[in-house]
Amino acid sequence: MQELVVRPAQVFREKLGLDLRLEHEATRIDPQAKQVSGLEHNNSEFTVSYDKLLLATGADAIRPDIPGIEQEGVFVLKHLEHGRRILEYLDSRQPKQAVLLGMGYVALEMAEALRARNIRVSMLKPRPEILPWLHPELSRMVQQELEDNGVELYPGYRPLQIQPLEQGLHLTCSPELSLDADLVLAAVGIAPNSDLAADAGLELGPNTAIAVDERMQTSDPNIFAAGDCADALHVLSGQRTWIPLALRANRSGRAAAVNILGGDARLTGVAGSAMFKTFGLEVARTGLSQKEAEQAGFTPVSMQIETPSRGHGYPGAGKLRVCLLAEQNSGRLLGGQITGQEGAAHRINTLAVALHNQMTVQDFAQCDLAYAPPFGPAWDPMLTAANQLLKKL
Amino acid sequence: MQELVVRPAQVFREKLGLDLRLEHEATRIDPQAKQVSGLEHNNSEFTVSYDKLLLATGADAIRPDIPGIEQEGVFVLKHLEHGRRILEYLDSRQPKQAVLLGMGYVALEMAEALRARNIRVSMLKPRPEILPWLHPELSRMVQQELEDNGVELYPGYRPLQIQPLEQGLHLTCSPELSLDADLVLAAVGIAPNSDLAADAGLELGPNTAIAVDERMQTSDPNIFAAGDCADALHVLSGQRTWIPLALRANRSGRAAAVNILGGDARLTGVAGSAMFKTFGLEVARTGLSQKEAEQAGFTPVSMQIETPSRGHGYPGAGKLRVCLLAEQNSGRLLGGQITGQEGAAHRINTLAVALHNQMTVQDFAQCDLAYAPPFGPAWDPMLTAANQLLKKL
Repeated sequence: MQELVVRPAQVFREKLGLDLRLEHEATRIDPQAKQVSGLEHNNSEFTVSYDKLLLATGADAIRPDIPGIEQEGVFVLKHLEHGRRILEYLDSRQPKQAVLLGMGYVALEMAEALRARNIRVSMLKPRPEILPWLHPELSRMVQQELEDNGVELYPGYRPLQIQPLEQGLHLTCSPELSLDADLVLAAVGIAPNSDLAADAGLELGPNTAIAVDERMQTSDPNIFAAGDCADALHVLSGQRTWIPLALRANRSGRAAAVNILGGDARLTGVAGSAMFKTFGLEVARTGLSQKEAEQAGFTPVSMQIETPSRGHGYPGAGKLRVCLLAEQNSGRLLGGQITGQEGAAHRINTLAVALHNQMTVQDFAQCDLAYAPPFGPAWDPMLTAANQLLKKL
Repeated sequence: MQELVVRPAQVFREKLGLDLRLEHEATRIDPQAKQVSGLEHNNSEFTVSYDKLLLATGADAIRPDIPGIEQEGVFVLKHLEHGRRILEYLDSRQPKQAVLLGMGYVALEMAEALRARNIRVSMLKPRPEILPWLHPELSRMVQQELEDNGVELYPGYRPLQIQPLEQGLHLTCSPELSLDADLVLAAVGIAPNSDLAADAGLELGPNTAIAVDERMQTSDPNIFAAGDCADALHVLSGQRTWIPLALRANRSGRAAAVNILGGDARLTGVAGSAMFKTFGLEVARTGLSQKEAEQAGFTPVSMQIETPSRGHGYPGAGKLRVCLLAEQNSGRLLGGQITGQEGAAHRINTLAVALHNQMTVQDFAQCDLAYAPPFGPAWDPMLTAANQLLKKL
């Protein structure tokens, strides 16, 4: 797993000349004195002064508040160290049945990884929808893919407690359901590490993420925040949002660095673009879901289509499903989703660029998208969805 | 091959109630009398009157002017009937060696199809570049892919004549080169069928395509043209262009129909988006090439990058190459190209949408494109190219 470390500590120290202090836990920011204090690994206190401070405290996996969650054999997966622990457990214990709490990206990717080791996989979540932000028809494709690969799904089930057995664990749920497992993964989401910022009186945004402006500056002009701990502006709603994903984290770190050094880097915001693969199915989204659009004050109209993944007559085509959303009166695009095989996920980015440009469905439907039979129909699935949505508007 | 016919003639006649007359060759338009006349298959003359006339005469493959080009065993490929003839020849004659004249989309796709039948394939073209619109580094990937699949390439060779042998054909070229073949495919491009329009005094555009406005109206307000016979406006240059591809052909047909029926459908134009696959390699482009940009009066700056096709540490990654072009002073995006595997071609459409929105590199670099390790690096290859191009501008 060491190859997953993009840059080891000594590169920061030796090549970049940074005073990198591992095993130092910052416990307090004093914005007036411009000082950070905390504890070293030997419990001795430290204090450092700053001109400008960057908070890059990231996010952590949420451990659901269930009796028994702290037991051996129960994992979360956010940091590399978590992955190492799971892998070690898989190798040493050879578990035969796993229960995944949650059905988000991490849970769906782990379902595939565990099934590849021939481990029985059960997934459960309190809400009845598999992926609530996804159009029901597209969500059904995900469900089918999971079931086709032997994953047992329990949407609408809430875990009540995890009890130790002589061998393994026993999970009790509501409504009544009992599941044995020798591995439980809690993948119910993440939360920003913003306590330090909150204690220092910094303004917080949605989901208690640290509120930043387009320059990554917090409510204290000497303190910047970047990465999964910070919020962002949504390019569609203009509202603060917290969508902690890799590109924004990376991009915000670069922008913060430029600004701390006296430059002026401004980020326009996020469109909420995301993709994942579970087994043979690709799933992608950008913009707002139906519910998110309503919550942001839009009146969304949606259109869902099914198209072949290749041109007419070209052998080996699969199915794609696309859902597009636009605002009723203005026709402005609000978001979309896609499920399918063969590069289906890549197609979402055409829509992401359209959202950044505040395009209407009508203008988007005019785009000259490339075509060749191995890659799709002459009318790109995104265009077909746009044409159908136009008729509905 | 019958499955390639999207709609047979009887559907037009029976379901749509059209007076569809096959084997009627229109030979003259009289715009004053609003009449079209010509010959039926039995050589009897016909004349029809019109209120509005649609020219959908398409394009035809260019047969290069070489002695011997009309011989048996020499083919072009544009219409379904051409494909049928080639297939019949392949099945009945079992040719062992083929020479392809040209290295465009059709030639590159046919190279793969012929190699799949284990036929020796030689390709030649007069110009020294394999694909002149492609950045040299990307063109090299195409060349490598062809050579890896046993295709013999002769760029810079002009065919002089095709002579019959006792068995098969013999091709003589300049500079001196002799090739035996039992199948020759001339795939040197297509030309619009616009003679009828020209004879009627209609204005012609680039490559003698029929000049149309954004409503598909020709210089005669009662005559419309759509499909491969008609030109289009380029969304970047605003100039007339002729890029005969399926989506525009289809779209222009629909727009012409709406307008002929009294509606008002306007097409914004083409970005020049195209993609193809040859063997395992995907190639795509949109916008202007370096040379086309210069010819259109821009001062293009280009950046070419290589990136892995998957995220850091995700196994099985291949290589992608991206070339992006922007105008020096304004930073406005002018075009781009991509070569690689694994859905590489799909990535071009993000750029196509950016071109339709007249985006600058700076704005495009801010786009929130989706990321997951199976699909690419955290910074999408298009964004990495944009960031690198920004540094150069």
